[in-house]
Order: sequence, then C-alpha cells, then structure tokens
Amino acid sequence: MPRQITSFSNETVKRLRALRDKKARKSEGLFLAEGLRILAEARDSGRLPEIIAYSPAGGVHPLAAEIIADAESAGADVIETSPDILSKMSGKDNPQAILGAYRQPDTSLAAIDRTISPLWIVAQALRDPGNIGTILRTGDATGAGGLILIDDSADPFSVEAVRASMGAIFTQQVATARWDEFIPWLRSGPGQLVGTSLKTDKDYLNPVYERPCFLLIGNESQGLPEEYEAECDLLVKMPMLGRADSLNAAVAAAVMAFQVRASWRNS
Amino acid sequence: MPRQITSFSNETVKRLRALRDKKARKSEGLFLAEGLRILAEARDSGRLPEIIAYSPAGGVHPLAAEIIADAESAGADVIETSPDILSKMSGKDNPQAILGAYRQPDTSLAAIDRTISPLWIVAQALRDPGNIGTILRTGDATGAGGLILIDDSADPFSVEAVRASMGAIFTQQVATARWDEFIPWLRSGPGQLVGTSLKTDKDYLNPVYERPCFLLIGNESQGLPEEYEAECDLLVKMPMLGRADSLNAAVAAAVMAFQVRASWRNS
Repeated sequence: MPRQITSFSNETVKRLRALRDKKARKSEGLFLAEGLRILAEARDSGRLPEIIAYSPAGGVHPLAAEIIADAESAGADVIETSPDILSKMSGKDNPQAILGAYRQPDTSLAAIDRTISPLWIVAQALRDPGNIGTILRTGDATGAGGLILIDDSADPFSVEAVRASMGAIFTQQVATARWDEFIPWLRSGPGQLVGTSLKTDKDYLNPVYERPCFLLIGNESQGLPEEYEAECDLLVKMPMLGRADSLNAAVAAAVMAFQVRASWRNS
Repeated sequence: MPRQITSFSNETVKRLRALRDKKARKSEGLFLAEGLRILAEARDSGRLPEIIAYSPAGGVHPLAAEIIADAESAGADVIETSPDILSKMSGKDNPQAILGAYRQPDTSLAAIDRTISPLWIVAQALRDPGNIGTILRTGDATGAGGLILIDDSADPFSVEAVRASMGAIFTQQVATARWDEFIPWLRSGPGQLVGTSLKTDKDYLNPVYERPCFLLIGNESQGLPEEYEAECDLLVKMPMLGRADSLNAAVAAAVMAFQVRASWRNS
C-alpha cells in the first residue's frame, strides 16, 4: 500500500527534492526521472524506481498504475501525495503527476561492452546537460550502445539531462572517464576513433566508417583539443556553408551518427 | 563619446533589462544580443546596435572598440557602465562584458526572397527558444536562406534563441506566419515542401530533393499535424533504430538539412 504524505517537511520529500543537486545525487547514488512517458520507458527497459511518488490524478492512469504496482512488488517506497508537494519535490510550478528516484548505474568504462553495438558516442567536457540528454536520445535513435563522457562534464543524471533524453538515459549505457583512462581502454579492443575537424579535407560523406565506430564530439565552446584530434584514427570535415565555423554539439553528434549509419547501408 | 551610467535605476538600464520580456521586445521593436562574438557576427553581417553597453574591461578589446566606434558613428546610444549594472541589464550573475540592443527585422513572409537559397527551414509551433536558435545556427551552416516559424512559436528574438543561434539570428532571414498564410505564399512560387513522418516507407537518404526545398519540422511534443503532413509534396522517414520514435526538433532539422545538401552533391 502507498504511504500518504501530506507534509512539506517530510523527510522523503526533502530527500527527493535534494536530488536536484549533483552532490546529493552522488551521495545517494540516485537520480530523478519525471513524467509517465519516461517512467514507462524505464520500466520497458527493465528499470524500476526505488522511490515512486504521484498525485491521486497521476496514479489512476492505467500505465501509471501498472508501474506503481511493479515498483511496489520490487520493494520500492511508494508515495501518494498532493500536486503541491510534487511541485516541491520537482522544483517546478507545474510538476509531472508522477516521478521516480532510480539507482544510478555503474558508469565505469569497465562496465561498457563494446560488442553490443557498432556505434558509440564519446563527448568531451560537455557543459550543457540538455546537450547530454539530446545526444542520448540521438544515440537511442541511431542504435548506439551508449555515451562515454570524457573529462569534466555536466551530470548525465541531472534532471535536465534526463528530461532531454526522453527516456534514453535508461536505454543507453553511460560511462564517465578521463581521457588518459579512455584511450588505453579504447586501444585494448577494436574501434575506430572518429573526430570532426576543420583542419582536414576529408568530407564526412565519403568514408565507410569502421565498426565499432567511436564518434568523438568536442566541447561546446572550444571544440576538440589538438592532442585529442591527433589521437583520432580518422578526422572528417562537415561542410560549413555559412559564416559560422561550428555546430551545436548535439547537432554535430547527430549529423555524424546518422552519417555513420548511412555509410553502412551499402557496405 | 560614451555616456557613463552608474545608477541601477537609470532609465536605459531598465529599458535594456525589460528586453528580456517578449512584450517589451515587441513594443520597442528591439532585441538583445550579448557577447563580443555575437556582436562581431552582427557587424560583419552589416548590423549595428541602436544601444550598446559595455564594462571598461569589455570596451578595451580591439574588436569591441571597433564595434563601439562603428555603432557610435551610426548614431547608437553608447554606454560605459559597471559589470554590476551589466549584470542587472542581462539578468545574469556573470554577464558578458558587452551587449547590444538591435532593431528587429521585418518578419513578414513578404520579406522573404526564396531565390537567395535552395534550402529553407520551416518549423511548426516550436516551444523551446533554444531549439529555434540551434536551428538558425544549423541553417547558417547548411547555407539555408532562413527559418519560417509557423503558428504559435517561441520568440526567435528572445535572449535564449539569440544566444543559441551563435550569431545566426543576424545571417538567417526569419519570418513568422500562420499555416494558412504560409501555404498560399509557398504555392505562389517554386518549392518542394518536405516533411518527416513515420507513416511513409520512403527513406530520407534516397531522394534528390528539389530546389528550393522547404524542410518542415514539427513541434517538439506533437510532431506535425496530419493535415500539415498531407500538404507536403514529399514525406520521408528517418530510421529510428532504438526505442524512441522521435528526435529532438533541432536534431531532426539538422540531420535533414545536411541530407538535403548531401543529395545535391552528385546531381
């Protein structure tokens, strides 16, 4: 049976609320996902929340009721509460009617099995959690295995990243690593490291990319450091026909990921 | 000579600050752009601000000094002020050291000259100003003529959209129109209206798109309404290999825009 929470100062309310901060996410090992669509994606990917909270209206939807029942069977803390208290938990004026706190997966490189997909996205020092979520969503669409975040990066388990991922946080593997950990790991198995650069004449449309392909995407403001470019097995250029010399990081990742897939159609 | 402003309650400070609201932008016909990079993009595109404000540190950069001098020659209100007052103007704790208020261009369809480019992006009811800015940036990169915003859309002149555009707000034409204005305008001249849909089997990689191509991108949460799809001259499908059935709107626009360009390489 769900617990009823009616007090704003309840400890679980505070605890969920705190998950909006990276520090609390790290110490708890949990992260928040909001909205029925994302919770359903999680469940369909075999993931259930450790805490689930919903308003009476949010709990009556048949799919929500299923997820709540599944979570309860799995031992979750199940909480029915008011929209106002959900609003406090989520920090939003118009909160979703259901939210869950999920265990963060192992994000070590050792947990990545590169044989599960021919395509992986590697991003360096991304600062915008929305970009991280969008890249996860694109990774799902292009059948990537996951996203490897290099160096200091925004948190892939932040509320903004989870929301932008539209549930792909549950379907894509996520690892975080320093560059000098990543390279030995990469070179310990098969894989072509592909970067985009303005310094090459190789058009991105021409290669048939190797499998597995590791697409390396640079930071939003600086692009790839020179020594990272130098480590790439292949540098390609995306034509820039206007005044700008770069694309949004999530856009660059998507255009390249779709092109890598396209190159495999006829090969 | 620049005016010195030292008071937070100065009328111009309040006026610039107010440009963060759509209502004030509309009644003034102005919009804010922040940071030397975007102001330089504007100047290089022949656009100068009507008001320009900077901190002493912001004004000493040689490029900033040039833009300030150009703006002054063109009759702009030139303001030197403190970082704290810039912070108030921009509503940010760490403001850029220079900002400008620019006249909004004519956004009527009548102002669009479709002969200047073979590629135009048309987006329906976008709600996220960051997506609008990102699409403008992609439009610049792919040599699009501009962006036509259909139905109720976030404001392309909002601070978030201008920032995400990375200056492309000054290089791309922008129009806003209702669907029932857009279609007669579109059909009054050449143009292939291309939409993406899950309901077709035509792969997006196969066509050689016609010129000019008008790429129609659906709203973030609903995608394209059925009657809008029905109006398209060509519907294509982007393969979705994972669990999700859609892409971020700015990502979809980018993958399609690059593919339209790619289809013209060998034709």
